[in-house]
Amino acid sequence: MPHISLPEGLPGITSGFAFRPETAKPMRELAHTLLHGPSTLTPGERELIATYVSSQNDCYFCQASHGAAAAAHLGKNSDLVEQVKRDFLHAGVSEKLKALLMIAGQVQQSGKTVSAETVEKARLQGATDLEIHDTVLIAAAFCMYNRYVDGLATWQPRDPAMYSGMGEHLATHGYLTPSTSAPALEATK
Amino acid sequence: MPHISLPEGLPGITSGFAFRPETAKPMRELAHTLLHGPSTLTPGERELIATYVSSQNDCYFCQASHGAAAAAHLGKNSDLVEQVKRDFLHAGVSEKLKALLMIAGQVQQSGKTVSAETVEKARLQGATDLEIHDTVLIAAAFCMYNRYVDGLATWQPRDPAMYSGMGEHLATHGYLTPSTSAPALEATK
Repeated sequence: MPHISLPEGLPGITSGFAFRPETAKPMRELAHTLLHGPSTLTPGERELIATYVSSQNDCYFCQASHGAAAAAHLGKNSDLVEQVKRDFLHAGVSEKLKALLMIAGQVQQSGKTVSAETVEKARLQGATDLEIHDTVLIAAAFCMYNRYVDGLATWQPRDPAMYSGMGEHLATHGYLTPSTSAPALEATK
Repeated sequence: MPHISLPEGLPGITSGFAFRPETAKPMRELAHTLLHGPSTLTPGERELIATYVSSQNDCYFCQASHGAAAAAHLGKNSDLVEQVKRDFLHAGVSEKLKALLMIAGQVQQSGKTVSAETVEKARLQGATDLEIHDTVLIAAAFCMYNRYVDGLATWQPRDPAMYSGMGEHLATHGYLTPSTSAPALEATK
């Protein structure tokens, strides 16, 4: 049961967003710019970083929804998403993305954990300053989103179809508008 | 030295904001709404929560700047800010704020750490759902800001006068516009 009276029937972060629209607006905008805005990292790569950090923070809602968005971007390859969560160093992703995931994993522990060596490794694989910046900020932002979702003890249903519908919606439309379509929500009832 | 080429002469988060204005905008708006917008928690109380979380995350820039903003709101009482960082249970703040600081401390560890008992304790001291929500989100957001500032290895000068000027500016004007005035920056050179 949520720690406060959140609107019923809205899963995860969407209940917090409905409860407090004033803070939802910038939180949506930040996610949209980082994950869906113009970037030399593909949306699939950025969703994998978000999913990996959310899995390290053990946030069910965020890893399921962003994992589904990543899969939607990657030709429905949810096996690859699982591989990245389990052991990204041996997953079928580029060496550059592996190096960026290492940075993201360090940020998840603490900002101070990020080492010059890890950053240099990413640079040697072709990562630009902007890609390194956005990796640090995606990881930092999911340390916020994950804590928000779990810190309020939001409702996090275990229905794969709901997350799959949400992932398709996010991959197509981004983060500025509510991501849970009515049909997806109906499926959970 | 910062991990990427950030604009020189801008301390802490302001260098990341100048590097990437697209993400700075929603990050500024979120801080402004949470710390400076309308609320039944005073700006001083909210800045103390931000400062406490930043000190738990060992982020020098954030605890110095928000500590200075808290002191500016609290009649220049920087001793109280230090007490809250060191041992808030014995600091000269209300029982309600102590209970909210306990929630914030749990969020800093992990969203899942927040317990129904701690939330109930805050409620018994008169905390509302909105105050509990904002406490969770301030703590979660500073887990982002702190990781962003330290994860980029930003320049964090040790000049008390600079932070004091910054704190006065933030307390007066909020977070929507750059907080470091030219004179404060000059003082660091």
